[in-house]
Amino acid sequence: MSEKCILVGQSGGPTAAINSSLAGVIAAGIEAGVRVEGMRYGIQGFLDGRSVRLDEAFANPIDLELLRNTPSSWLGSCRYKLPSPADDEATYQHLFRRFKEIGAAAVLYIGGNDSMDTIAKLGAFGREYGSDIRFIGVPKTIDNDLVSTDHTPGYGSAGRFVATAMNEIAYDADVYDLKSVTYVEIMGRDAGWLAASASLALARPDVVLLPEVPLDESALMDRVSSILEQKNTVMVGVSEGVCTPDGRLICEHAAAPGVGTDEFGHLATLSGAGRYLAALTKEQLGCKTRAVELSTLQRCASYVASQTDLDEAFELGRAGVRAALSGETTKMCALERVSNDPYEVRTRLVDVLAVANQVKHVPREWIAEDGMDVTDELMAYMRPLIGELPSQLAPIG
Amino acid sequence: MSEKCILVGQSGGPTAAINSSLAGVIAAGIEAGVRVEGMRYGIQGFLDGRSVRLDEAFANPIDLELLRNTPSSWLGSCRYKLPSPADDEATYQHLFRRFKEIGAAAVLYIGGNDSMDTIAKLGAFGREYGSDIRFIGVPKTIDNDLVSTDHTPGYGSAGRFVATAMNEIAYDADVYDLKSVTYVEIMGRDAGWLAASASLALARPDVVLLPEVPLDESALMDRVSSILEQKNTVMVGVSEGVCTPDGRLICEHAAAPGVGTDEFGHLATLSGAGRYLAALTKEQLGCKTRAVELSTLQRCASYVASQTDLDEAFELGRAGVRAALSGETTKMCALERVSNDPYEVRTRLVDVLAVANQVKHVPREWIAEDGMDVTDELMAYMRPLIGELPSQLAPIG
Repeated sequence: MSEKCILVGQSGGPTAAINSSLAGVIAAGIEAGVRVEGMRYGIQGFLDGRSVRLDEAFANPIDLELLRNTPSSWLGSCRYKLPSPADDEATYQHLFRRFKEIGAAAVLYIGGNDSMDTIAKLGAFGREYGSDIRFIGVPKTIDNDLVSTDHTPGYGSAGRFVATAMNEIAYDADVYDLKSVTYVEIMGRDAGWLAASASLALARPDVVLLPEVPLDESALMDRVSSILEQKNTVMVGVSEGVCTPDGRLICEHAAAPGVGTDEFGHLATLSGAGRYLAALTKEQLGCKTRAVELSTLQRCASYVASQTDLDEAFELGRAGVRAALSGETTKMCALERVSNDPYEVRTRLVDVLAVANQVKHVPREWIAEDGMDVTDELMAYMRPLIGELPSQLAPIG
Repeated sequence: MSEKCILVGQSGGPTAAINSSLAGVIAAGIEAGVRVEGMRYGIQGFLDGRSVRLDEAFANPIDLELLRNTPSSWLGSCRYKLPSPADDEATYQHLFRRFKEIGAAAVLYIGGNDSMDTIAKLGAFGREYGSDIRFIGVPKTIDNDLVSTDHTPGYGSAGRFVATAMNEIAYDADVYDLKSVTYVEIMGRDAGWLAASASLALARPDVVLLPEVPLDESALMDRVSSILEQKNTVMVGVSEGVCTPDGRLICEHAAAPGVGTDEFGHLATLSGAGRYLAALTKEQLGCKTRAVELSTLQRCASYVASQTDLDEAFELGRAGVRAALSGETTKMCALERVSNDPYEVRTRLVDVLAVANQVKHVPREWIAEDGMDVTDELMAYMRPLIGELPSQLAPIG
């Protein structure tokens, strides 16, 4: 066991796959005979002196296997945006002193956009400071909005949950002999990848609304109305990040009188797009409407996780350790799709500076011309990430 | 193939198991060489002349197997309360004419309380009318609130979803290093069985609130506050049917200004207990709070269905056909628990009149004295119905 260690942290929102990446880091560290230390509650907890010895805690392979299938961030997380060194050099001095104390040869940070920004800043500061610590980012985000990687761990499992839930809700919505429109609100403030995954439901939704295309409310009402002429039940997947052409979020419209605030007038969370559109539809088309928020469940539903997602998350964790031990720094471990059928990916290293603070949107050409559905190309892109869904009997028709 | 048929309908809210009961009816009918006809959209659709030939539609056993695992009500459903014959004899004349036209030797109705009421009324009218049609009820309700049966199909699967979701949300809630209280709102207007199932989560909730015990808000705040002194994250499962001592539903409190109504002032659904308590807690204890509604997902989540539940639902469907063919009428097929460890049940017939319009509450002695938790007896009752949950790594602690 060397004196030097691999230091690893988790950051940002929890997912079903982020612990699988952590398991990959720990497994690779144990294999390499390196001490592995974990930051409690990310960089912020680590700044407060909180860490945990992981190679010892996971000496038993059964625990490591359990960790792979445990949702959320086992180490705890933070939402801490590292200031720039120009603004706050003291924080950096403090952090690098802590890195030295713990004997960090490498720092791995598992997270999304902000985490890659953290790795980029630490790498740049380290270089200037003359530190030989390596900084490697391991991606995760259910939003799938990181550039330079085919997709991100966490997305496949969240997408599998969304497609499954959309299917169950569609079956549920269709039981009575009456006209109804159901809006299912899906996470994704800036990018529509997760909302798009609703289209993989066996009972495919009639309309999917992504943040990439401004919503024309009257075009939506026309579309829904014309579908209602052909069948009883209309299903709509709507991203929480959908805006009207003036750039206002749909949920801001919802926030008008009394809604969007809680019972005591506090501002509620940024949700309500589904509720707003359900109310609009009821008002304009006069039929029964319903809004379902998938809420927290979509990011932590490990019981419906995509095995491909968990496996890839684990491999990226391992790749991070390999990269660090071979002397790489200021890199993110990325996934490259070698082939779609049969599905095959390989890991590669990309410059973390090119990833930080960028957003990968759904390409416009992968969205139907009217902005209300996804294309076959997008379906083919998503399908292997989400995996096959269990068969069910088609509705009676 | 005889001229006479078994006529079957589904009624009330969808569940993950009601199609498994339908599959049991069809399978037993095919075995007995009887024609099986299904009502589209329950009694109401049947009154309008809508039915479907089931023994032919499910001649292929693969389709029957798929039906067992398909959520919601495949035949469609209705929420139709049959009037009393004294008020509206014409409807009964019409129905019995329809029964005769289709050649019904027996009518099986799969549903909850109202469905058993329907069977009781039809049986009583038939007897007076001199009809030899047999009327048999097959229970289903996620609420588990039917008397004369140990439990009801649909409950085990919904409970399994609730326990699983509660677990995932607890893991999700615990990631940041801050004090927070999360309320998870669970279906069950009159009885707390489904809310109680949240306690089977591996990460067991700290507090569970059932409709059987009036809520003392200040006692709840004291309890939550004292738990917060010991740990970061407090999880509360709350039934949508919880009332304050004055008999008002918590969600009616929530409906005060602007809340409980949608953006256009329409009255929204009967939910909001979680949101109300989250707002109250934030106001009184000043910590971060969150409310999650499990919503529609809890009744139709077939991907996390309890196999025991699906199997029992199937057996009750078969038992219904057996009962009808042996000449029984005005009965409900019930489950009797022979042994809890090992778990064993058998089916038996009970008088449907004793079931209709009764509600089986959670016994007060199965709820903790302070009304904020369940007892070991209730845990032991629920466990075999919900089934074993996948192992996950315990929080870092």
